[in-house]
Amino acid sequence: MKKFINAPESYVDDMLTGLVMAHPDIVRKGKQGRTLARCGGVPKGRVGIATGGGAGHLPLFAGYLGEGFADSCAVGNVFEGPNLQSCVDAINLADGGSGVLLLYGNYGGDRMNFDMASKLAAINDIETVLATDDIASASREEMSQRRGVAGIVFAYKAAGAAARTGASLKDVADIARRTVARTRTIGLGMKSCRLPGATDEISELRDDEVELGLGIHGEPGLWRRPMASADALVDEMIGRLLEEGPDDMEHRRLAVMVNGLGATPLEELYIAFRRAGNVLTERGLDVVMPLVGAFATSMEMAGLSVTLCFLDDELEKLLSAQANCPFWSVQ
Amino acid sequence: MKKFINAPESYVDDMLTGLVMAHPDIVRKGKQGRTLARCGGVPKGRVGIATGGGAGHLPLFAGYLGEGFADSCAVGNVFEGPNLQSCVDAINLADGGSGVLLLYGNYGGDRMNFDMASKLAAINDIETVLATDDIASASREEMSQRRGVAGIVFAYKAAGAAARTGASLKDVADIARRTVARTRTIGLGMKSCRLPGATDEISELRDDEVELGLGIHGEPGLWRRPMASADALVDEMIGRLLEEGPDDMEHRRLAVMVNGLGATPLEELYIAFRRAGNVLTERGLDVVMPLVGAFATSMEMAGLSVTLCFLDDELEKLLSAQANCPFWSVQ
Repeated sequence: MKKFINAPESYVDDMLTGLVMAHPDIVRKGKQGRTLARCGGVPKGRVGIATGGGAGHLPLFAGYLGEGFADSCAVGNVFEGPNLQSCVDAINLADGGSGVLLLYGNYGGDRMNFDMASKLAAINDIETVLATDDIASASREEMSQRRGVAGIVFAYKAAGAAARTGASLKDVADIARRTVARTRTIGLGMKSCRLPGATDEISELRDDEVELGLGIHGEPGLWRRPMASADALVDEMIGRLLEEGPDDMEHRRLAVMVNGLGATPLEELYIAFRRAGNVLTERGLDVVMPLVGAFATSMEMAGLSVTLCFLDDELEKLLSAQANCPFWSVQ
Repeated sequence: MKKFINAPESYVDDMLTGLVMAHPDIVRKGKQGRTLARCGGVPKGRVGIATGGGAGHLPLFAGYLGEGFADSCAVGNVFEGPNLQSCVDAINLADGGSGVLLLYGNYGGDRMNFDMASKLAAINDIETVLATDDIASASREEMSQRRGVAGIVFAYKAAGAAARTGASLKDVADIARRTVARTRTIGLGMKSCRLPGATDEISELRDDEVELGLGIHGEPGLWRRPMASADALVDEMIGRLLEEGPDDMEHRRLAVMVNGLGATPLEELYIAFRRAGNVLTERGLDVVMPLVGAFATSMEMAGLSVTLCFLDDELEKLLSAQANCPFWSVQ
């Protein structure tokens, strides 16, 4: 697959410049590090939300800055966590005087730099919540070891809505933590992707093969099997997600995301969503707030992920609250 | 490239079912033909807008139903115009008693069926406007022969906004016609796509080759050359679009769309937009209303198109008016 780029070394900065030019009312570049900040900054007295991660996953992470979402983002090289300076700057950019929630995916490099940055930032009032929604990445007994993938978008939305109500740092962090605890994702890779400047794909899949649970950086999944029908594959994905539901399921209402990993057409995402919705309804679950599109990608990786967020009354209200970022707008 | 589908013959209907399930407040299936209609229908006394086209181009065409956009859509098989019955039904679904604008792309099959449907529909008050924005598809002297591609989205938005003001059928059609007359698109294909059930791609591009002006059904473009830098390719695309500007350019304000053809990552679209915005600014033009994303695709085709809409005061106002469809929301 050809890439429409100038040079591998300018990939991230060219992309961020374009992103800021395309959304000038929502996002601006930070003055230091490689950071973006929400236009207008964090209103005084409101909890700020800082995030970050490697490039190559748009709309993650930089796309989720906006009113009712995150406030700042540190951006790393492709598939690499942001550097220390960028993490420090992202934290400071999210400071409105009432503390900062760090909300990002559970990856070693990101954790190391954000943890160190928390000690170096200008403020002390910081809480950290890690997204750990990828059920293929570790067993249920080791849930805290799981990687974060598309499900973080629900945590941005819920925590961002809580921050807008003037909630305390502890309460905003609790909301983010509860959202993560009630969110499960599984991916299915159909074709891998290539780092800018590299000649080989990060994971080689045969022409007739798909991989359940393939990670968004090519981490190995649960199995490789011959390509099957959309319905059969969705059935397996939904089955595994439902086995993982939280103990408290009395609400029986779900937010559902069918997310394209990059190169899979919207047509196929709707074909997947049709089956997901039907299966969940047959199981007596109510699908509210469907999201179908590209929310967390791996450049030109083909395939999709399905995310279920097992709602409770408060989460449903927060996810439905008015909000606006370039990739999820609720009017 | 594998496809995430059930069977070639259920592709379109599975996709439409998923689309309606994902946007239940915006769009519903029509009772006859293969049609979609905006929920709530056309308010009495308002001009309705019907559109249609082949499947495989999502968000085109079915994704642009909503308040301030189109009201009904006839859907054909993949890359085939909708059948006669669907065209008739789409016209009737857009009837609010004040006439219907038919707005669709300039393709022979679509034209034949919509023209015949206009005679068979329950109403007489119909005007037709064809999108003809693809500058690679015919020379400037034969502008009316050009095919319609991504630029039709601007025509939906402007005509939809005009209809919402209570404008007459003639005025809504004039707005659509003027938007088309002031809109130019050029595409660049990097990799082709495959029809569901087919074994070969619709157009074979070598690994090191790109095609300027490749049509969204694989129609041949202007040239094939070795892949070059993003900036060099955007420069050529913008140069050709500006040569084609309307005679009346005193406003010097442009709406700009960088549209992914399906498999090209959002990162690369922003890299393209960065250059497009810079080049246009250097030429003394103001870029307002940037749109970067997937607005008109060819399934898993890789590449992008750039569309310029040369604004005037009225078009700018109509394109900025509040509106809501799943793929373009203005608050």
